[in-house]
Amino acid sequence: MVYITRRETFAAAHRLYKDGLSDKENFEMFGKCSNPNWHGHNYTLEVVVAGEINPTTGFVLDIKHLKKIIHQNVISKVDHKNLNIDTDFMRGLIPTSENIVVSIWKQLVDKIPGGKLFSVKLYETENNYFEYRGE
Amino acid sequence: MVYITRRETFAAAHRLYKDGLSDKENFEMFGKCSNPNWHGHNYTLEVVVAGEINPTTGFVLDIKHLKKIIHQNVISKVDHKNLNIDTDFMRGLIPTSENIVVSIWKQLVDKIPGGKLFSVKLYETENNYFEYRGE
Amino acid sequence: MVYITRRETFAAAHRLYKDGLSDKENFEMFGKCSNPNWHGHNYTLEVVVAGEINPTTGFVLDIKHLKKIIHQNVISKVDHKNLNIDTDFMRGLIPTSENIVVSIWKQLVDKIPGGKLFSVKLYETENNYFEYRGE
Amino acid sequence: MVYITRRETFAAAHRLYKDGLSDKENFEMFGKCSNPNWHGHNYTLEVVVAGEINPTTGFVLDIKHLKKIIHQNVISKVDHKNLNIDTDFMRGLIPTSENIVVSIWKQLVDKIPGGKLFSVKLYETENNYFEYRGE
Amino acid sequence: MVYITRRETFAAAHRLYKDGLSDKENFEMFGKCSNPNWHGHNYTLEVVVAGEINPTTGFVLDIKHLKKIIHQNVISKVDHKNLNIDTDFMRGLIPTSENIVVSIWKQLVDKIPGGKLFSVKLYETENNYFEYRGE
Amino acid sequence: MVYITRRETFAAAHRLYKDGLSDKENFEMFGKCSNPNWHGHNYTLEVVVAGEINPTTGFVLDIKHLKKIIHQNVISKVDHKNLNIDTDFMRGLIPTSENIVVSIWKQLVDKIPGGKLFSVKLYETENNYFEYRGE
Repeated sequence: MVYITRRETFAAAHRLYKDGLSDKENFEMFGKCSNPNWHGHNYTLEVVVAGEINPTTGFVLDIKHLKKIIHQNVISKVDHKNLNIDTDFMRGLIPTSENIVVSIWKQLVDKIPGGKLFSVKLYETENNYFEYRGE
Repeated sequence: MVYITRRETFAAAHRLYKDGLSDKENFEMFGKCSNPNWHGHNYTLEVVVAGEINPTTGFVLDIKHLKKIIHQNVISKVDHKNLNIDTDFMRGLIPTSENIVVSIWKQLVDKIPGGKLFSVKLYETENNYFEYRGE
Repeated sequence: MVYITRRETFAAAHRLYKDGLSDKENFEMFGKCSNPNWHGHNYTLEVVVAGEINPTTGFVLDIKHLKKIIHQNVISKVDHKNLNIDTDFMRGLIPTSENIVVSIWKQLVDKIPGGKLFSVKLYETENNYFEYRGE
Repeated sequence: MVYITRRETFAAAHRLYKDGLSDKENFEMFGKCSNPNWHGHNYTLEVVVAGEINPTTGFVLDIKHLKKIIHQNVISKVDHKNLNIDTDFMRGLIPTSENIVVSIWKQLVDKIPGGKLFSVKLYETENNYFEYRGE
Repeated sequence: MVYITRRETFAAAHRLYKDGLSDKENFEMFGKCSNPNWHGHNYTLEVVVAGEINPTTGFVLDIKHLKKIIHQNVISKVDHKNLNIDTDFMRGLIPTSENIVVSIWKQLVDKIPGGKLFSVKLYETENNYFEYRGE
Repeated sequence: MVYITRRETFAAAHRLYKDGLSDKENFEMFGKCSNPNWHGHNYTLEVVVAGEINPTTGFVLDIKHLKKIIHQNVISKVDHKNLNIDTDFMRGLIPTSENIVVSIWKQLVDKIPGGKLFSVKLYETENNYFEYRGE
C-alpha cells in the first residue's frame, strides 16, 4: 500500500454567514470572515490516494490521471469562483474550510480508479489547514 | 545603507472589470478574473525600507514600528475586504496587482521614519508577483 | 471527524546538557548543541485538533479560539525565552525537541473545547521535525 | 512514542520505460517521462522513525545518527546518479516514485537503532509526493 | 515602471563535462556533476518584465500571455528533456546554471510585448540560484 | 555579468541590549528581544556574487568553493553559537540583524575569487529580512 498525493491550488471568494441572522449576529459568530462584500483565499488542496503498486506500470494510479479527476470534479467548480454562489457542491453549506474539505471528499470518493481516497487536505492560509479522511 | 524588509499577508476578494464594458467584453479582456461573483487571494506583501543604521539602537528602523505603519495604512484596509468596494485607496482603479502595488506604495511612501521606502512587492499567487520602486 | 491544524512560530534559546556531566561529557553526548553559551531556533509549532463539525457554525472549533489557547498556554512561555531557564513546563527536562513536543502536548491536552487534541508537531529546523500524539 | 523526521534532498536522473516495449509504446504508457535521453528531479526525502524517548539523552535517536544512516544507505546511492543505471537497489524496477519510496524503505527498515521505521515520504515535485509505511 | 514576475518549473537531466577531457579530468573540474550517466533537477525559473501600466487594462502585460511566451520559447524545450542533448538553445554550451540562465534570457529578450525583459532567475536547488539581467 | 547566490542556514542565540542601560531601559528600547536569558533564531543567509562566466568551466565561481568560503569565514563562527559572546566579528556590536548582515559582508568582501561580492541577505524570521550591498 503506497499513498500518493497530488497538490493543486485554487483562488476563490467566500463569506461566512448564516441565513436568518443579522449582519451584527453574523459578525459576532464569524468576525471579519462575515464581511458582506466577501473576501477570498488562495486555497491549496492535497488529495491522497492509497493503493497497491500496479506491477506493469509501477504506478498506484497515473498521477496525470488523478490530476484530471481533481480538475474535472473540483477545481473547475471552485477556481476563480465564489464558494457561496457559484459552487454547486457547496449549496446550503456555510463555506468554512471544514465544510469545504468534507464536500471535496464527497466529490472525489467514488471517482478514483486503482486505489481508494485516503485523505483530503485543505490549506486556507499558511497558518490554518484542515483534513478529512472519511471517518 | 541597509535594506530591511517586513512581510505581511492579507486575504481579499476582487474582480477585474472595466466600467462601461459588458460582462462578455470584460471576459474577453480579463478571462476568469472577471467573474461577476468575485474571487479572491491570500496576498503576501513585502515592504522594503532603506536607511543608515542608527548607532544607538543598531536598527535602521524598529521593525515592530514598521509593522504598525503597514497595518494602520494598508492591512486594516485590505484584509478580509473586497478591493473593488471596501478599500478607499483603490477607488476608481481596476484592482490588478500592478495597480494594488503602486497604490500601497503611495499609502506608505511619506510615512516611514528613519529611512526611505525602497520597494513594495506583492505576491498574488505562488507563481505571480509584482514590484514597484517608485520609478 | 475533521482534523484542524493551527500553525504558530516562536524564537527561543536552549542548550542540551545533563546536570552532573562535565562540559566535555556533555559535548560527547550532544555535540555543538551543548554550547554552554546557548544557541537558538525559530521553532514552528503545529497543533492538530480532531472533532465533529458543529452544524450551527460549520466549525470544529473557531480557529481564532484555538490560537488564543495556544498563545496563552504555550507561546507566551516560550517565545523570546530560554527553554532551560524561563519555561516553567520544561523544568527538569533536557530541552530536546522530543521533550518539548511532549511537554507542549501536556500543556494543551485538557484545554481544547469542542474537539480533542490529536497531534502536536514541532519543527526545530527545516530538516528536523518531531510529532507526539499522546500514544 | 514520539515520531522524529529527518529531511534530506538528492538530485537524480531517471526515465520511465518498460523493457520489451517500443519507444512509442513507452510514450503511450509514460508520456514525456519516457524521454529516451532521460530527465531528472530534485527529490526531497523524509524518513520518520517512531520510538520512546531515552530518559538519559532526551532523544528517541540522535538525529545526527539518523542522518548518517540515511546518507550511507540511500543518499550515497542516488544523489547525482541515474536511478535506472547507477542505483543498485533500483535494479529491475521501473523508477516511479512509488517504486523508489518502497525501495528506500527496504534499504532502511532493519538499520534504525532505538526506534522503528514508521514512514518514508518522497517528494518528486512540489505537486506530487508519495509515502510508504510498510503496510 | 512596475516589475512583474512569472514563476515556472521544469524537470531536466544534465551533465557537466567538457569535450576533449577524460572522465577523470571532468571529475576533477566538475565533481559528481560530471557523472557520465547524467543526473537532474527540478529547476525553478522566474522571468521579470519591467514596464508601464496600461491604463486600459491595469496590466503591464497580461501574465497569462507572458506564461505562453515562456512555455513556447523555453519550457517546451527543457521540461522532461536532457539539456546536453535535447535543447537546441544549449547546443555547444556546458549546461551550468550560469550558461542556462543567459541562454534563456537570449530566448526571451526580443519576444516580450508591452514591456522589456528585466531579469531571468534560475533556482537549481533550494540552496543555489542564478540571475542574469542582460548586463 | 551573472549573479550567483548560495543559501546557508545557522542557529544562534542572541540578546539585544546596550551596555550601561538597565534591564528596564533595555526592555523599553528592545522589548522582548532584550530578555537577559537570551533567545535565538534559525537564520538563513544568502550570499550573492557577481561576475563574468569563465568560458572554460561555465562557472562564475564553483559554488562548492563559495560554500567553503562562507563556512570557513561565517558559519563556523555563528552556528550553534551565542552572537553576543562567541562570535569574534560581532564584538562590541548590538547583534541586530542590521549589524550582523554588515559584519558578514566585511567577513566575506575580500575573500571571493573570480567575482565580487554583490549582496548579503539575512532572514531572521519568515517575516523579517535584511540586505546589505556595501553601499
